Amino acid sequence: MNYVYLDNAATAYPKPPSVESAFLTAAHTAFGNAGRSSHHPARLAADCLYDCRSRIASHFGGDATRVVFCESATHALNLAIKALTPPDSHLLLSHMEHNATLRPTYALQKKGVSYSLYACGAKGASNEQEDTAAVLASLEKQRKQNTVGVIACHRSNCLPLTLPLQAIGDYCHKNGLFFIVDAAQSAGTCRIDLERYHITALCAPGHKGLMGFRGTGFVLFGKAVKDEALQTLLEGGSGSDSLALTMPSLLPERLEAGTRPIEVIAALAEGIRFVEGVGCESIGEKEAYLSAYLKDRLKRLKHIRLLMPHRTSHATVLFQVDGKSPSAVAEALSDGGICLRDGLHCAPLAHRLVGSEKTGALRASFGYFNTERDADALVYALKHQ
Amino acid sequence: MNYVYLDNAATAYPKPPSVESAFLTAAHTAFGNAGRSSHHPARLAADCLYDCRSRIASHFGGDATRVVFCESATHALNLAIKALTPPDSHLLLSHMEHNATLRPTYALQKKGVSYSLYACGAKGASNEQEDTAAVLASLEKQRKQNTVGVIACHRSNCLPLTLPLQAIGDYCHKNGLFFIVDAAQSAGTCRIDLERYHITALCAPGHKGLMGFRGTGFVLFGKAVKDEALQTLLEGGSGSDSLALTMPSLLPERLEAGTRPIEVIAALAEGIRFVEGVGCESIGEKEAYLSAYLKDRLKRLKHIRLLMPHRTSHATVLFQVDGKSPSAVAEALSDGGICLRDGLHCAPLAHRLVGSEKTGALRASFGYFNTERDADALVYALKHQ
Repeated sequence: MNYVYLDNAATAYPKPPSVESAFLTAAHTAFGNAGRSSHHPARLAADCLYDCRSRIASHFGGDATRVVFCESATHALNLAIKALTPPDSHLLLSHMEHNATLRPTYALQKKGVSYSLYACGAKGASNEQEDTAAVLASLEKQRKQNTVGVIACHRSNCLPLTLPLQAIGDYCHKNGLFFIVDAAQSAGTCRIDLERYHITALCAPGHKGLMGFRGTGFVLFGKAVKDEALQTLLEGGSGSDSLALTMPSLLPERLEAGTRPIEVIAALAEGIRFVEGVGCESIGEKEAYLSAYLKDRLKRLKHIRLLMPHRTSHATVLFQVDGKSPSAVAEALSDGGICLRDGLHCAPLAHRLVGSEKTGALRASFGYFNTERDADALVYALKHQ
Repeated sequence: MNYVYLDNAATAYPKPPSVESAFLTAAHTAFGNAGRSSHHPARLAADCLYDCRSRIASHFGGDATRVVFCESATHALNLAIKALTPPDSHLLLSHMEHNATLRPTYALQKKGVSYSLYACGAKGASNEQEDTAAVLASLEKQRKQNTVGVIACHRSNCLPLTLPLQAIGDYCHKNGLFFIVDAAQSAGTCRIDLERYHITALCAPGHKGLMGFRGTGFVLFGKAVKDEALQTLLEGGSGSDSLALTMPSLLPERLEAGTRPIEVIAALAEGIRFVEGVGCESIGEKEAYLSAYLKDRLKRLKHIRLLMPHRTSHATVLFQVDGKSPSAVAEALSDGGICLRDGLHCAPLAHRLVGSEKTGALRASFGYFNTERDADALVYALKHQ
């Protein structure tokens, strides 16, 4: 069945064919355990690992030895938040954080950690400056004496909102706060510069904009972080210092317990290579164009209610159909081969911003391989809803 | 290059061809996010997930809804140990535990958790009964008032030792202790029965005896565990109860934050199907036969020192070469295409049992696809070392 796939914010599809080839090559040649053995397939595995670390580091302007591979962005965010946050401290989270940052932060309550929410922008803002000023004012208002860090969902997974990383990073730098960025929806679709934005920990999944398979994600730590100060979340075999009862003191080994999934990591390296070839900005522009194209057409349908209709969008469009439950619409669309996601998108805060936290909404999210025809197909199908 | 691959205790190789096909099928059809969307590719992903859960549950005699997918056995063991162990309690770990259990247990010191080591068997034991009696006596001797659980590495990853799960499980059941089993080296090579052995949490990797790719592992929880009592290790999107600040109360969602790696999980289901087709006991018998075959031949080489030569073995053979460092030998063998692993195998306790914790040793570990010829090739190469 040929689908009209508009659920790229969950998992990008299709992947470039070279990504699959990279998986298979690694499966057939790099089957040893990186850093554990000295034989040839193990060395090839170590090469795959290092190649992907280097690619991530060069793409985001960091250091290859400071890439920590995780199972997912959720794992990466848990790791970063828990590694950096001391007991009895206070964190600042944006008003559109995903449950991948909200829930681990809430879980730290048992260690006396509290948090406040800061604004994502200015209501009715006419330009980026107004938004940025509102974000900074809110950060300053919410900051407490024991505030140690700021967490920023770079781009919402359902709303047309992007946080100003440069301004927030500068603010953190000036005030001695760490800065964790959730780049789940932005990695691979725009330029993110670790050093320039003063990011302490950049977290991203492998299976979205970076075009890898599921089962990968990473934290890229900035240089300012002291390795041995990072609290470990998982402990286990590290392939080095085996006699010690604790994890090695240096990154990445300190935070990488157990066998790394070399096959999907090799595929991720190839995904990043593809993104670099096309250019992440071009990918982002194409996705933004498609979502603007869709928005423009949905505005003409009287029974469709766009959420945040006037905001500039990136890849996602959030909407509701008058008189119908989002799940019923999603199901009907699915029967016609159109794939999008209804519900709260694991982002209750974002839905609260637009008043849809009780009903949920429908989200169309574009990827690099979508075309205007996909948007047209959705519009056509919605006309008959 | 055709390798003689004797490092299956690290990662099984090759995989059955059907495992790769299952990966590709899932990549091409089940690209939606399970439990997040209602469209067809998401439903197929949910099917993959459930199929693998069912396969694990039926293979180990548990409940499909109590399978928690993890990145690796290390992740699974961290999750099980930290989910079950309350502060200020005491654990019993065997004298051959891998760093995947030793290090997370040690990390719990910060919560007031302590541990003691129990014996893996009787020195010079002539039969299993003597070993079992020694294990039970040691458990009883080490048990304290605040002991809450026992952790057992079912089979060592380097020594020819297997812990008596039935006896330890009965002991735990009688004394109200939880029982965590590290089946990293045994899953897929012998019958393990969750209920019969009174196992609270069975942890295993996907990429060893169960023939999957790296990036998978799981905990299978027994029925006696109360879901909501399990401490979470990672929090994030769960696809349900999105408005709540905490993870859902029921398994598996409670402990599965973030996107599951459907592609490798589909491959793992196929790996287990293969193992069931051949029969896990047959696989284990073949591996044990090959290691006995190798041991028998290595005994004839005067410059080879077998560690625990008289013990009945499963898939691994641990040895040293007189006058040569294990790493130098491993490297020389690798040049000839023979892949095995030197060092401490992330298992310093096991090496301490045989006095090799300072020097390390060489480990040959067999898999289902090895033959006598592979053992012969190693013997031949070692003759010239």
